[in-house]
This record gives sequence, C-alpha cells and structure tokens, in this order.
Amino acid sequence: MNVNQKGVVMSALAAAVGLLVGGLIGHFGTPTSSSPMVIPEEDHQKIMLVDKIMTDKWKTQDDQKQQMMDLVNANNIKENLRELTSKPHLAATDRDDELALMIQKRFMEAGFDTSDMVPYDVLLSRPDENNPNLITLHDQDDKVVFTSKFKEVEVREGDDSPDFVHAFTGYSPAGDVKTSPGIRVVYVNYGRVEDFDKLKELGIDVAGHIVMARYGKIFRGNKLLHAEQRGAKAIILYSDPRDVALEGVEPKEIYPNTFWLPGSGMQRGTTFMGDGDPLTPGWPSTEHAYRVNEEDAGLPNIPCQPIGYDDARVILEKMGGQAPPEDWVGGLKGLPYNLGPEMAQEFKDHSIRLQSHNSRKIHRSYNVVGTIKGEVEPDRYVLIGNHRDAWGYGAADPSSGTAQMLETARVLGELMKGGWRPRRTLIFCSWGAEEYGIIGSTEWVEEHVEKLSERSVLYINTDTCASGPILNVPASPLIWDAIQEVSKLVPGVRDGPTVYDEMVAYHKLQNKSSPEMKTLGGGSDYAPFSFYCGIPSLDIWFRTDKNKYDISTYPAYHTGFETFYMMENHIDPGFRIIQGCSRVALLTLKYFGDSVIIPYSLERLPEAAKKDLDSFKVNGVRDKLVNIYDKYSLLEESVDNFTAATSTFAKNLLHKEGSINDPIMIRAINDQMMKLEQVFVLSAGLPGRPETRHALFAPSQFDSYEASGFPGISDLLYEHKNLDVNGKKKKEKEIMRHISDLTILFQKATSLLKDFHFF
Amino acid sequence: MNVNQKGVVMSALAAAVGLLVGGLIGHFGTPTSSSPMVIPEEDHQKIMLVDKIMTDKWKTQDDQKQQMMDLVNANNIKENLRELTSKPHLAATDRDDELALMIQKRFMEAGFDTSDMVPYDVLLSRPDENNPNLITLHDQDDKVVFTSKFKEVEVREGDDSPDFVHAFTGYSPAGDVKTSPGIRVVYVNYGRVEDFDKLKELGIDVAGHIVMARYGKIFRGNKLLHAEQRGAKAIILYSDPRDVALEGVEPKEIYPNTFWLPGSGMQRGTTFMGDGDPLTPGWPSTEHAYRVNEEDAGLPNIPCQPIGYDDARVILEKMGGQAPPEDWVGGLKGLPYNLGPEMAQEFKDHSIRLQSHNSRKIHRSYNVVGTIKGEVEPDRYVLIGNHRDAWGYGAADPSSGTAQMLETARVLGELMKGGWRPRRTLIFCSWGAEEYGIIGSTEWVEEHVEKLSERSVLYINTDTCASGPILNVPASPLIWDAIQEVSKLVPGVRDGPTVYDEMVAYHKLQNKSSPEMKTLGGGSDYAPFSFYCGIPSLDIWFRTDKNKYDISTYPAYHTGFETFYMMENHIDPGFRIIQGCSRVALLTLKYFGDSVIIPYSLERLPEAAKKDLDSFKVNGVRDKLVNIYDKYSLLEESVDNFTAATSTFAKNLLHKEGSINDPIMIRAINDQMMKLEQVFVLSAGLPGRPETRHALFAPSQFDSYEASGFPGISDLLYEHKNLDVNGKKKKEKEIMRHISDLTILFQKATSLLKDFHFF
Repeated sequence: MNVNQKGVVMSALAAAVGLLVGGLIGHFGTPTSSSPMVIPEEDHQKIMLVDKIMTDKWKTQDDQKQQMMDLVNANNIKENLRELTSKPHLAATDRDDELALMIQKRFMEAGFDTSDMVPYDVLLSRPDENNPNLITLHDQDDKVVFTSKFKEVEVREGDDSPDFVHAFTGYSPAGDVKTSPGIRVVYVNYGRVEDFDKLKELGIDVAGHIVMARYGKIFRGNKLLHAEQRGAKAIILYSDPRDVALEGVEPKEIYPNTFWLPGSGMQRGTTFMGDGDPLTPGWPSTEHAYRVNEEDAGLPNIPCQPIGYDDARVILEKMGGQAPPEDWVGGLKGLPYNLGPEMAQEFKDHSIRLQSHNSRKIHRSYNVVGTIKGEVEPDRYVLIGNHRDAWGYGAADPSSGTAQMLETARVLGELMKGGWRPRRTLIFCSWGAEEYGIIGSTEWVEEHVEKLSERSVLYINTDTCASGPILNVPASPLIWDAIQEVSKLVPGVRDGPTVYDEMVAYHKLQNKSSPEMKTLGGGSDYAPFSFYCGIPSLDIWFRTDKNKYDISTYPAYHTGFETFYMMENHIDPGFRIIQGCSRVALLTLKYFGDSVIIPYSLERLPEAAKKDLDSFKVNGVRDKLVNIYDKYSLLEESVDNFTAATSTFAKNLLHKEGSINDPIMIRAINDQMMKLEQVFVLSAGLPGRPETRHALFAPSQFDSYEASGFPGISDLLYEHKNLDVNGKKKKEKEIMRHISDLTILFQKATSLLKDFHFF
Repeated sequence: MNVNQKGVVMSALAAAVGLLVGGLIGHFGTPTSSSPMVIPEEDHQKIMLVDKIMTDKWKTQDDQKQQMMDLVNANNIKENLRELTSKPHLAATDRDDELALMIQKRFMEAGFDTSDMVPYDVLLSRPDENNPNLITLHDQDDKVVFTSKFKEVEVREGDDSPDFVHAFTGYSPAGDVKTSPGIRVVYVNYGRVEDFDKLKELGIDVAGHIVMARYGKIFRGNKLLHAEQRGAKAIILYSDPRDVALEGVEPKEIYPNTFWLPGSGMQRGTTFMGDGDPLTPGWPSTEHAYRVNEEDAGLPNIPCQPIGYDDARVILEKMGGQAPPEDWVGGLKGLPYNLGPEMAQEFKDHSIRLQSHNSRKIHRSYNVVGTIKGEVEPDRYVLIGNHRDAWGYGAADPSSGTAQMLETARVLGELMKGGWRPRRTLIFCSWGAEEYGIIGSTEWVEEHVEKLSERSVLYINTDTCASGPILNVPASPLIWDAIQEVSKLVPGVRDGPTVYDEMVAYHKLQNKSSPEMKTLGGGSDYAPFSFYCGIPSLDIWFRTDKNKYDISTYPAYHTGFETFYMMENHIDPGFRIIQGCSRVALLTLKYFGDSVIIPYSLERLPEAAKKDLDSFKVNGVRDKLVNIYDKYSLLEESVDNFTAATSTFAKNLLHKEGSINDPIMIRAINDQMMKLEQVFVLSAGLPGRPETRHALFAPSQFDSYEASGFPGISDLLYEHKNLDVNGKKKKEKEIMRHISDLTILFQKATSLLKDFHFF
C-alpha cells in the first residue's frame, strides 16, 4: 500500500497546487479578510485526494485510447506467435515451462508490479511415446491388414517435430479392446443422445461394441460418456470432411494450400467432463492438498482414440449392416456410412482392435500471474487470462490469444512509462493445463475464491482469439453494452472502419438487425470465474465467417496442422485479427479499470433471463413446468420485478452520476453492482453439479460446449424425460425446489438493488 | 442515498467553514498574492467530505460515551420488561404479534429510518390445548393411579394465565405409548452417549422401552436423538432438584421465596436438531417458497414429554431394577434412582402410558427489523438482535434481552435528537420463533445472506441477557479485545466500579488471572450469522455466579415460573444487570459503528485456533490424527504462518493508522478484515452439516450447546470411533480431506492479509 510514500508525493504536489490556487483566487467567493492566504497543506491534500479518486480516466483520456490503438503492433504479435509456436507445448512439458518463464519475464519487462510462477500439482494424462495408440484390422488368421496412423503425415516440410505428442484423448484410459467376428464397430453419427436414441429405435444396441463417432455438434467428452453409459467397450472419434474439408480432399484443397484439414489430421482433446484437477474437486491442487483416488474422480472408463478421415475411410469402407438415416452421412464420398454392427461381406470374418497406452500421472503445471497495482482502488481487480498449453504447436489455440496478451501487456507498459496507472489493479494470467479440463484457472480460482469473489470487477478471457475475422464476444449480459461501445473504437480487421461496423455488416448478411450478444458456453478459462463465482466475464475471439463457410471453428483445431504457417497464410495474414483482439482487450481493460462507476449494463441481465423464460413458452417447456409446479408463474413475476428494479437503479444512477461527489458512495454503488450477478450463484451448485453454480447462464450438463439459460431447469427436465413413474415423481420435487430457488434468487437480486438500509 | 439533499447541506456548511478558514489563515503557508482569497466552494466540499469520512467518532466523542451510560434508565427497562412479560407470548401467537407491533412502533418512535414487520411462514408445533399431554400409571385393572401435571401449580397468585401453553417439547411428535408389564421405564441419567454406553455395559437395552432422563449437561434434542437411535419408544425429561433446587424443595427454599424451581416446574423447549424452519433447510420460508415434506425434515420421531420433579419422584419411586452408578443419583432425597427396566416389586404388574397430542402446522412468524442509516458508510452494518418469543412469560428468556434492546434503541434515538448519526448503518432485529430452532434469524439470514456476508461488520446478540450478575460474552475472537475495552467503560452491576472489574474479581475467585474469553456455542440467534456466514458475532449476557451456585443457568429456565416477579425479586433487583447489558450493547454498537478502522483483534483468531490445536496434543487427539493423516503437521504449520501474517498485518495497521488519509484505503483495509473470518466458511458446510459452515468455531454436532474448536475434526473422530474396519477406512478419507481443507483455509486467510495485488 505504501501510504507513507504516497504521503510524500502528495505533499510536494500540494505545494505546487497551492501556488496555482493562489494565482486563481480572483475567480471565487467573497473576500473575507484583507490579508493574503493559501489553503493549508493538509487541506490541499484532501482536495487532491478527492480529485484523484473522482477523476474518470476513461471519460477524460480519449487521447490515450487513441494512443493505445496506435501502439498495438502487428509485427510484435507476429513475432510473439512465432516464438510461442516454435515447438509443441503440451501442458507441463519442458517447453510449456519455458514459455511460462518467458511470459513471466515479459510481464516484468513491461513494468508490472508483480509477476509470479504459480504451481499446481495436477493429474494429467499422456500416451506412451514409445508405444503409440493403434487401431488395427485383422484378417481371419489375425494378421494385421491395416494400422491407423498415430501422428499426422508431414505435408509441409518442417511441420513435424520430435516433441509432437501422438494422437490421444486426455484422460481416456489405457485399454486393449478386440472385437470378435460379429462384434464390431457401430457408427453413431455425432454420438449425441438423439443419435443413440435413433440407433435404439433401429434395433441396434451398442453394448459390447466399439463405437465410432464423427467429431462435431457436441463436446467429445459427452460422446464418450454417452457411449460408456450404453455399454460400449471403446470409442473411435474422427474428423469428417463434411466438417473439416468442405472444398474437397485433394492436396490443392487442403493444408498447406488452404486451411482445410488433410486426411491425417487428428483432433486431440480432453474427455474429462468436469473442470479442474480431477483429483481435487472444489479445492486447489496445492503441493500437499488431499487428493481423491483416481477411481473416485469421475474420469472416463472406456478407451478412446481419435483418427483422421483417411483412416476413418478404411474402417467405414469395411462397415456393413443397415444404411443410416440420410443426415448421418458425412463427407467421405461414395461411402454409405453403414451402421454396423456387421462389417461388410468381404470383411465379415475379420476383426478390429483398439490399443490405447495412455497413462495418468500427477504433473506440476504453472500459471503465470502478473499484476499492475491500481492507484486508487488496488483491491479491485480487472483480470485478463489466456491459457498457454496446446495439443501441438497451438498456433490458434491458444497461442493467438497468448500473442495478443503479451502485446497488450507491452502496450500497458508503454502507457505506464508515460505516467499512467490504472485506477484498479489489472491482473494478467497465463493459465496452465487448460486443455485437460480448464485446470490452471480452476485451481487458482479455487485457491483464491474469497478474494476474487469479493474484489473482481471483470474477467476477460481470450483463448483462440483468431479463428476467423468476425468479432464475437460471448459474455455476461452485464458486459454486453460495454463490448459494443469498445468495438466501436477498434479499427476494423478487414474492410470496415471499426470492428463494430464489421460485426453489423456480417449480421446484416445473416438477416439480423444488430450484432447478437450471447452468454458464455463451456470450454475455456472463464468457466471458474463465471460459472463458479458469478464474476462478470467475457471471451474475446474473432470467429470464422459463417457467411462463407458453415463451420463452427477452424478445421485444424487441436491437430498437428495448427501451425504458425497456417495462421500467417490462411487465417490471419498480416495479423490484423490478433491485433484487433489486443485492441479490444486493451480498451476493455481501460474501460473497466479506469471508469469511476463500473460500466455494467445492469438491465441486460433481466433482459437475458426474460428472453430465456420466453423461449420456454414457445417450445412447450413452460406447460411442462407449470404442470409440475403450480407456482411456476411466480418465477416469471420475480423476473419482472427484477427488471423493474434494475431499470429504476440504472435510471437513478444515470441521473445522479455526475453529482455523486463522495468516494465512499461511489465505492458502495460499485460494490452493489459487483455483487449482482454473484447473487445467482447457488452455494451448493446446480442440481448434481457442485462445480457449476451459476443458476442463470452456464453450459448445459448434456453438452458442455453450449451456453444454456436456466441450465438447472433444462438439465432436470432432460433427466426427467427418461425416468419411470417413481423416478419422475422424485425428480419433480427437485424441479419444484429449483424453480422455487430461482424465484428466490431474483427476489434477492431485487433486494440487493434497494437503498442500503432497506431489507 | 439522497445525494442531492446532502449536497445542499454541504454547501451551507461549506460557506460557514469558509469563514472559519478565512479567520485562521495566518497559521499556514506562505502568502502568494496580496489580494484576499477564499477557498472555492467545491474545494471546501471536498475538504469537508474527507473530514467527515475520516473523523473517528469513537475516539473523539468520549463525552457521548458517558452520555450513553447516563441515559440508560433502569426504570425504563423495568417497565419494558413488565409490558413484555404481562402475558405468555409463544411464537406466532396473537400476543407475540402484538409485541412485534409494539417493538416496531418503538423503533419508529426512537427515530429509526425504517422499522418493518418481516413475515416468514414456518413449521411450528403446539400441544392440544383441550387435550393435554399426560403420563399415567395404571394398575393391574388398567385403572389410572397417577396422572402427571400438564402445567405448573400456581404457587404465587397471578402467575397462572389462560394463555399459558401446556408443557410439551417443540416438534416431538404426537403418540400414545403404553408399556406392558416387563416393558417399562429406563432411567438414563442425562441421556448422553456415555450414559447410554454405560447402560449397554450394564446389560440394559433401552430398545422398546420408555426412557427417562434428567435435564442438564447437553441439549434436550440430543437426549431425544440418542434415545431414538437406540430404539426407545418415548422419552420423559424432568428437572432434577440437584440442578434446579440446590437448597431444598420446601416452600421457603423455592420460588416465589427464592429463585429455585418448585416441583411442578417443567422445562419446555425444542427437540429439533437443525436451525431454521425444518421445511426450508438452506433457503428462506417466504410465502411461496418450496417446502420439503415433513417426513424429510429431520424431525424427531418419538414422543417426548417434560415433567417436574414432583411427578418424576412418583415414577422414580416405582422404579426397580439395578442400582445406577453413584454419580447418576440426582437430588430427590431417599430415592435410589434405579435403572429399570423392571419397576419395583409393589408395582411390578402395573404399567405406564405416555400420551402426547402435539401437532405441527405452518404459522406466520414475524421478525421486526429496524435500521438507522449510517451517514458515512450506509452499506456497512452493525446488527443487534434478540428474539421475542417465549415458552411462557419469558421474563429472563428472552424478555430481559428485549427489554434492554428497546432501551438501547431509545438511547440512540436521544443521541440522534442531539445531531449524532452513526458512521455505519445500525440494524435492530427482534427475532421470531427462536425457541423452536433459531427460526426467525435463520430465515432472514438465508434470505439476505449475500448482502449480510458482504456488508456486516458485527452481529451483537442478546437473549437471556440477565440470568445472573457476571458479564460473560462468548464471541468471535476478533471481538475479544473490544469486549474487554467496552466492559471497562460500563459501571458495575454489583459492587465493582466497572463490569470489567467485576469480571476480574469473579475470575480471581476461580483462580483465573484474567476474564476468560470464549467462542460461541449453540443455542441462539447468532448461529446463522456466525456459523453459517462467518460474520463476527458476540452474545452479551450476565451469567449466574458460579462461585455461589454451581449451576449453568437460572433454575426457572423455560418453565412457568420465569416471571417478572422472579426477575424483579431474585435475579435483577433494581434492574442493574439488564441496564448493564444495554450499556455494553450501546458501547459495542458505537465502537463498531463509529470507529473509522474497525476495531477487530485479528491476532486473537489464530491464537484461539492454536489453543484448540494445542489441546489436541494434551489429550491424545493429535496422535490419532497423525496416525490417520501423515500430513497433519502441515495444518499446524499453516496456523503458525497465519499467526505471523496477522501479527504483521496488525503491526503495520497500528503503525500506519494515523497516517492513512485516503477514504478508499480505509475502506479497503476494513473490507480485508471483514472477510477474514468468512474465509473459514466452507461453502458446502462441515462434513454432513450443510447449515453449519464455520470450520473453526461452531457447536459440536453431538452436543449442540457446546462450543467446539475445529468442530469438523471432533465430529468426524467421534463418528470414527464406533465404526467397523471398512467404515473406519472410509471415515479416514473424510478426516484427511477435512484436515487438508483446514490447512488450505489457513493458507487462504494468510493470503487474504497480503498486499492487495499479491497472490
């Protein structure tokens, strides 16, 4: 805190201002004495103190905003990315640790007040580098007639690396599963619940079989879980050209000539359904913390292996049995995508074998945490984070985000050289082991949950910040307006004057009147901040242009083809997108770090909740809920009351803002707003999900990628559907309780916005 | 907030100060201009604002402290108590509601800013007023030869009332239990676990029997639970002369001639083991909240009836079987206190019957909440509460507390008339339905937990504030020093100059060098504040003089003899004790409501924890724990580190205190300290106890009255003791996890005290 030092500085300034005031006195008041005077020094200090506290550096420093935009340098970003992607850097490998040290050093060089390596000892998993995971086909004599690839084919010189991790999925167990004739492979489309339901309807039972699913639509962990729950022995995941090679699979149509995925591209990734170290659910994996047994950790129990579409073709070609529903057919031309379980005639007596040699072990993984201490409110935090670990080179995921974060840090350092300091403390985080299950951030949040919940104004996430050219910022509704305001100040990354204009143009092509704001789904380090703590969060990324290609992300995602070359040549030539990302991040940091009143858009919160409730009306959910709980309408009423309360609060605040001259009142109002979203955190978590506690916006339990409004309701209804009469009855009690809880949460939020001495 | 109004006031004051400063300028600085000057009005406002925020009204207003002491009027207290005890006022009866309205009005009359009736719809239980609960003895022909009393005998004219509730225990179910010859009554001493263990050792099984226990040592709910767990069919509780009539049972030795209990005095009370409305565990019983089924509410399942020692004598006289251990013999002269299960020879073929007609129903119960808005920090709360409901007249419990609270409110009203306003908001609470299970306060805390956790500086409880003349304030260690300081300013209630001196003299007689400070046990409305939220709390009461009588509370506790007459004539003649209670409350309110830096004694927290850990060393617990978890010593280490951190923090604060001139820094430091105890709240609660979340200090699960350091450890070890090998193994995992959690909590607390930008 250094109060004494500050005192010294102030005294010197006080003297200076004393002279100034002396020179200006003619302007003010009535003379009350004929002798000359100055303001006593201690009073000067008070005046300056109030001025310092009350000066809004967001509103008054337009020149600095411009300077920020100018300072962000695309070449720096390029060099950052080149360094970050020079070698593969899987979580907790030597290279990952080297990069952590590099980032720590960069923060110090930028003039940060602290920059620390923060270790956690967490369970990770890796394949056996000497004994790769394989899928083999065997003839009648058990002779191997086909072996799957375990790493990508080098289609561009230099893309391979001895440090490159073989294809595997995180945490899926080792196993050796061999089919006998008649017990084969079942094609399960995307592996969604509805896909398995369809198979059941068609009379195909997957129990005892190996299943094979294409990637896409839902989180791979859900695919594995669905298969395991239905008794499958193992699961093969592959990337289908329908999703990753839309323009063909000829060399000229794929990487390195385009950004489309070659046939040996295998999507790695975790299969763990939880967040954080599986061995320490709910508490931090500090050195000596107690750990649960692996078998109690909720890890998947069947082997899983990812393959590319070249290998998938071989297996699919052999596949017999029924023809699938029409929309199950992917992009491998000429293949029927038969369902199995029988293989095709010519391979009838052959068998398939899946050998996985993954092993799980505790590794030390580092976060890097750097801080710039706020000069007025050092105990209020605006955080920005990006994970560091990658499945391979990670040029997009996560290093595009890391590249911008390093540049963002550098620019702030430049501003500090010019005398600027943020009002609030800024915290920069390079997270470890995100890819395995959002581990580094989750452990850190678990360790500091009380501090962070109390003090955090905002968490800004980036991850794959550049997968395409369209700015897309899923966020807490409290941040929606701020994002739009910020995006109007950031130069466009294509042809628009600003990224906001580009968003508008993009949405226009999709027949939407304005850029659509969305809440956060699963899948990155904002999860513990938002879903566990209720801290307003956002995730800055530029997405693929859906007007051009109907794909959800870039094709090389989590494969060996996610290279610097791909970024420089196909996704972000000139690095304008990553530059845009840094600019959005910088302005968001300044907006929330320097505004006197925190620029939350309170009214968007009930607005978003209301929209979700209204969607229940359209699709029959409301009727179902009313049927189960006759007091359901009270929930709607409580949302309406909350809407009115936020509106009144916002109006009052707007009305008063200029006239509030009391630092304590400013702080009190900010505290009130900071608490608002946190009210919706259920301390015991959503039904059956102690780690996911946000009752309004969180990923659905049954597809961890998707954002869901009222996730508890959709989860409970989902489970309710498949129960027998007694089970339904019991589940209905949970539903009633949850609706009642939600109603009370909105009442609490309404009460929070009252004047401080009202209850 | 009324910023505009405040602005107006300030401008006027600014002008006045302007004149003043004008007159004083000769003292400061160097002349810089020869023309006359004044400070610009907006700068005046800034100076005054800082002065207002930084003025410590505790340190600078000694005259007001004295005025407070003088204003507390014993006669007002007497009249308050007379009105409060004029009729019985069981929870949620008409009289209880009348008193709530009276209290609401008193708060308004005192000039409070708000005073509200706050309703909750909660499950309560009552006997059938037309069909009293009875215990009867029957001869061979089933003729009734003895019937127990269902209300007290009127030994002083006017003590009876038609509104007086018959003897019963809260929530124990209705039932009609009749013994057959050979299945009789078993005397179980105090009904503790060790008592039941002793019986087992003696070969006596209570399963199928009615058990009879004397009151004392542990909470009655535990007695019932222990009996139920061992298969007893019903339980009879009685007050033994050994505990309630130490000087004899002759009329001259008991009420109304002394404060000792007559033979018909029956102790009522709840038997519910949880806190709050049993139907809404964890959430508020608002009008439309979801409620669990009664059978899922954890309520007791065997009937329970309290009787006086006259009736107990009749039953004990009939009791045969083995002689009990020596220390099981109570104070009924000449009785052997045989254990049963056989009755004595002359009654061998007779039987006993217990009929209970209690019924449970949802009633509307009110809290009254009044507030005095703080002028500097309206969003920081110092709360004081006292419950209102009583089993009968409730002259000591709770009306002695209510009588002081009304006087405390009045005195603050007087000070406000003189222009004083507290820095922070003061909140006065009259709680409903405490007697049934701390219901009113728990529901209110559950409704406002986010606000209260964020904003509360202190919760002051009173309940039975006068049961004897010795000040005794169990409290969070953070308050221990403040209590001592305050008690040095309060005039003695007996012969000492101050209550502090009286405490010292009292402890000297007990060979203790200084007044012993203790943490909170179970049993009153501080429970949800302290054990659920971790808000620093204290309970002000004056206890019985143990140097005179070895009793834990006054004998008439919860009986029909707890009258105004008893208070006026035996416990508090002249009402000096209740007056002392009001004075302690007032100064505590001012100390925490007016000090700029909150006067917590941070160092006492690790000190108390360390003491509890050290006690494990003495009694062999440590060895057991080390045996179970080889990392146990890390817990001790983390406590030591926390000790060092609080010590450094406290020293720095003391050093800086005078020189901190920044309102935001003051607020930040206070926030940091306010959070400290809350770090020890486990969001999922102690093992198996979601409602009790304080990991350091909370009542033990196996005796809800007793305070316990590290309650999770003692509970788990207690359970561990009686398990088989497999059960022990499983329990040991819980113990390891809990010790690890505790270690991490101390690390978190240490981290919380770091400079704001360090992690």
